[in-house]
Amino acid sequence: MSFEILSTIHSPKDMRGLSDSDLQLLAAEIREALLSIVSDRAAHFASNLGVVELCIALHQVFDFSVDRLIWDTGHQIYPHKLITGRFPQFSTIRHRGGLMGYPNPAESPYDLFVTGHAGSSVSTVLGMKAADDLLFTDGRRSVAVIGDGALPSGIVFEAMNNAAGLKKDLLVILNDNKMGICPRVGGVASYLDKARVAPFYNGLKRDVSWLLNKVPLVGESTEKMLSGFKDAVKSFLHGGMLFEEMGFRYIGPVDGHDLRSLRQYLEMVRDVKGPVLLHVFTEKGHGFEPACKDPVKFHTPSPFRRDGDNEIVPVKKSTVVSYTEIMSDAIFEAMHEDPKVCVLTAAMCAGNKLERIRDEYPDRFFDTGICESHAVAFAGGMAKSGMKPIVDIYSTFLQRSFDQIFQEVALQNLPVIFTLDRAGLCGPDGPTHHGVFDNSYMRIFPNMVVMAPGDEADVKPMLDFALNCGFPASIRYPKANVEAIPREVAPVQMGRAEVLSWGRDGQIIACGTMVSRAIEAARELKLDGIDVGVVNARFVKPVDEELIARAAGSGFVITIEENAVMGGFGSAVLEAANRMALNTERFRVLGITDAFVEHGDRDELLADLGLDQAGLCRTVRELMQLTIPCTPAANPHS
Amino acid sequence: MSFEILSTIHSPKDMRGLSDSDLQLLAAEIREALLSIVSDRAAHFASNLGVVELCIALHQVFDFSVDRLIWDTGHQIYPHKLITGRFPQFSTIRHRGGLMGYPNPAESPYDLFVTGHAGSSVSTVLGMKAADDLLFTDGRRSVAVIGDGALPSGIVFEAMNNAAGLKKDLLVILNDNKMGICPRVGGVASYLDKARVAPFYNGLKRDVSWLLNKVPLVGESTEKMLSGFKDAVKSFLHGGMLFEEMGFRYIGPVDGHDLRSLRQYLEMVRDVKGPVLLHVFTEKGHGFEPACKDPVKFHTPSPFRRDGDNEIVPVKKSTVVSYTEIMSDAIFEAMHEDPKVCVLTAAMCAGNKLERIRDEYPDRFFDTGICESHAVAFAGGMAKSGMKPIVDIYSTFLQRSFDQIFQEVALQNLPVIFTLDRAGLCGPDGPTHHGVFDNSYMRIFPNMVVMAPGDEADVKPMLDFALNCGFPASIRYPKANVEAIPREVAPVQMGRAEVLSWGRDGQIIACGTMVSRAIEAARELKLDGIDVGVVNARFVKPVDEELIARAAGSGFVITIEENAVMGGFGSAVLEAANRMALNTERFRVLGITDAFVEHGDRDELLADLGLDQAGLCRTVRELMQLTIPCTPAANPHS
Repeated sequence: MSFEILSTIHSPKDMRGLSDSDLQLLAAEIREALLSIVSDRAAHFASNLGVVELCIALHQVFDFSVDRLIWDTGHQIYPHKLITGRFPQFSTIRHRGGLMGYPNPAESPYDLFVTGHAGSSVSTVLGMKAADDLLFTDGRRSVAVIGDGALPSGIVFEAMNNAAGLKKDLLVILNDNKMGICPRVGGVASYLDKARVAPFYNGLKRDVSWLLNKVPLVGESTEKMLSGFKDAVKSFLHGGMLFEEMGFRYIGPVDGHDLRSLRQYLEMVRDVKGPVLLHVFTEKGHGFEPACKDPVKFHTPSPFRRDGDNEIVPVKKSTVVSYTEIMSDAIFEAMHEDPKVCVLTAAMCAGNKLERIRDEYPDRFFDTGICESHAVAFAGGMAKSGMKPIVDIYSTFLQRSFDQIFQEVALQNLPVIFTLDRAGLCGPDGPTHHGVFDNSYMRIFPNMVVMAPGDEADVKPMLDFALNCGFPASIRYPKANVEAIPREVAPVQMGRAEVLSWGRDGQIIACGTMVSRAIEAARELKLDGIDVGVVNARFVKPVDEELIARAAGSGFVITIEENAVMGGFGSAVLEAANRMALNTERFRVLGITDAFVEHGDRDELLADLGLDQAGLCRTVRELMQLTIPCTPAANPHS
Repeated sequence: MSFEILSTIHSPKDMRGLSDSDLQLLAAEIREALLSIVSDRAAHFASNLGVVELCIALHQVFDFSVDRLIWDTGHQIYPHKLITGRFPQFSTIRHRGGLMGYPNPAESPYDLFVTGHAGSSVSTVLGMKAADDLLFTDGRRSVAVIGDGALPSGIVFEAMNNAAGLKKDLLVILNDNKMGICPRVGGVASYLDKARVAPFYNGLKRDVSWLLNKVPLVGESTEKMLSGFKDAVKSFLHGGMLFEEMGFRYIGPVDGHDLRSLRQYLEMVRDVKGPVLLHVFTEKGHGFEPACKDPVKFHTPSPFRRDGDNEIVPVKKSTVVSYTEIMSDAIFEAMHEDPKVCVLTAAMCAGNKLERIRDEYPDRFFDTGICESHAVAFAGGMAKSGMKPIVDIYSTFLQRSFDQIFQEVALQNLPVIFTLDRAGLCGPDGPTHHGVFDNSYMRIFPNMVVMAPGDEADVKPMLDFALNCGFPASIRYPKANVEAIPREVAPVQMGRAEVLSWGRDGQIIACGTMVSRAIEAARELKLDGIDVGVVNARFVKPVDEELIARAAGSGFVITIEENAVMGGFGSAVLEAANRMALNTERFRVLGITDAFVEHGDRDELLADLGLDQAGLCRTVRELMQLTIPCTPAANPHS
């Protein structure tokens, strides 16, 4: 395909004057551009296919060089990027230095917030609207597009409640594709399901069409029309009642792939006063049959190419095993061994590879939807009643439960287990998805045990330890293939590190994913005559004080972790050393320095940050050149 | 009053056989007990007066030695404590070592969770129900009592969504008293307001009465009756539609001070299948006229006594000024000086003393209700549009916005200002309300500036600095009277501490509230010939590296803060010292060690923790006895 039209769209203004058939061609070209990407790399796909027409219609009806637009969660941003001047760079998306796979204000004024965590769009759009109303008089409009998967996030409800109270002119577009990343769940999901089949749907459609044909679609009369219409149909309009009762005006549903209808509805609601919810039905994967059939698989598919009639052929087949799979297996086994063990996910059944558990143990599998706060408090309740809940949530998304980890778990000292997937740099998704703060935030709270497996062999023993230690406990592991350290694996004991080798010149105390890199570095340094030991830290909290004291007396000590240095594992080691009044002049803390890390290949990013074999060797060589003698530790507590 | 009946209630079972007039007397005695407390100390009052009958009825209809009951937020727990065996200890409430002012499992098996943060009850009760259903066959029932103030908290919506999806038998009682701590706000509030006047109310009341008189109130027939009834009235039952649409069965409203009606309704819903919401109207302050008239003032009133006919006389009048007031004045001034400055609170208008601002600058005052997550994302939106939002939330409640601080503020590097009231130990409210983690969690995120005023004089300059520094910034201050350090106040500069005195033997780097204590300690130590300097740290992030290097070279260094030592200010100082390869053998980090702190008088608690003059002097004397020589620092970076 030649991208005849798309290549001429340098800004949404360039769509002016395009005929409907041109626009349909544009939509097809956008879909083609999306397909060109996913044959090359893992990227968000089905959700982008689903919003092509909605995106075009929005940019036709509004002027987002002035008006405000937030795509909630943000992984459906590709069509928006394509028609806001980024088609030429589109092939760089999700590559280091290229376009971000999420909205990014650094790329374009059409992107207002870097998003990635679900549900905040209504809040930020409302905040912008409130500020615009105070600062400007030119009536900037505000639009949030939110999926039905993100809708049950508590913050959406908070924002809608506030919007209704403030009576701000705000358009929330519910992009209803019947899916989160996984099929949606919960009361609101059933509610929306009903909306698809309930009689009000056709009735409303008919009546709205009738009205649309009768009344000029501008200014006050639309306003009046809507007002009268609303009252008239309220008695049978149960479909939108949830939103109406919350103080929103409900309009819809409208077919999200019918450009003309979309434009009509958007023009109708554009200048309506007060908060409005427009219900749009879209199909996740629209326009590409395999993605429609399996939108879960095609949410972020592995690279594939088309073979003839939309048949797909995987480009490369993964033969390696990920930490996610190993943890899923460990959880499965634990559930098999102990009927009190159960697992919770927040809409990440696929991401956490919990399908087998869901199918085998449906009674002990709980998917709360994108509701991490609730999931953790719910787990607290389960633990209180004697179950052993495992909360299986990505590191970055568990941030949304910070207060529940505090109050419902740590404060009650309930044995809830947290398995933090995607801990560390998570590659092409970028800063909203990197899980680089959990070492810092999990260890703040009393009672919490914080762990990271050094390799595959640590995973199951660590989970078993967590399930039996009687405290709340967490285990972080990366979005990466498993590594295996050849050794006789030491049993997991509270607060005990595993010494893999002991060096004459100093020790590297490595946290989680950094263990294998430390081993490689030690091997390289040995060739230079530098003898460095490697310790598998295992515990971020409690740290192994005895080990730290021994290491301090042995030469230099390097801590390394795939986490922020601010408050992280290294910081915990420094605190412990300080409690023991150790001299830490020859301690070095390696980790992610105090800046957000962009998207890119994980190994490249780690290398940039010095968190690899080369970076470790560099640090060791620097330390070896320092002439400070190693003072033996004085321990006032001993 | 002699507490004739209350004194015989050692457990809810002792209420069996009491006549309705006895129960009314019991209610009066409970109110009398509540009054006896508030004449002696600040304590939650109006909310407790409002739930007396509801509490009695609940314990009559359910058996909470088996069934599950959570009082959301928990400050309305007093009647529950009084009838679950804690009347004899009641006079100790909120005193150190005495009863907690919130539910506390350590006190009684009738208390299941320590609560204090709003909104988690539905989640924890649902979690217990899910676990009980897996572990037991004896049909434990689950009840959450939640106020209309807590209802808009996002986690409630998440939990209701999940409960509807799981179809668990769950009773949520909406204790609707038209109030949060301050008057309720938002769309849900208007919705509930309508419920009070809408025709469905009387209609429903009549129909339910009729049905109650016709149908035996047991088992299946109730179930069937409700089902038929529901369909029959659904068309005019718009009052409960919000909850019905979410998948709950809505029952009510019922007069929350009519014991007989309450019991009837509770018996009716006790064994209904699936999630049910029972709407109860109560009056905050019921039974004590002045509290009904001003429920905001009587939420946690200053000690008062009754003078004759319910007239109240303050026991002591406060003449001192709090940090809260000083910050409120500073915000007021900033709003006066700059029309872009605005302020957000999460239902804490009274607690944060923002009434004057609300009245003078209604356009720039935003109360989101108990929706901290939304408040922060909303502030991010405002900052994006060019306003200068100040998020004025207690330290402990800002934990609920951890993920929004990350994504909507720090990641976007938007200049949102956080003023963290009640940072540090907040006294009789106890562990849910102590704000002792913010130094640790605020400094994790890149771009964030973290400050604490050393005294009153720092407050306004720090706020001005924050408003103009171009970064997100936070200022923490205690629930305490202001202190004033006599000095020429140095201007607030990024990352610069203020040296108040320089000691020959060492320095105390004190964070915020600890500065005045450090000055007292230095004065005491001088009498012993020990010369200690005192530094007002001001910045937790960025820390003053130059100062730390100087201090390290000068003798011992003590950091002290009213925050957890895990990841706190002291940890930041150790990290900085480590970056500069300083010897930290003679550094000591004082703060709250790794355990939750109970309730009690703040000064007593600080003394227990060694965070006072005596504790500081003790630490200094220990350090002076150590014979380790101070090695000058080697800095590989210089």
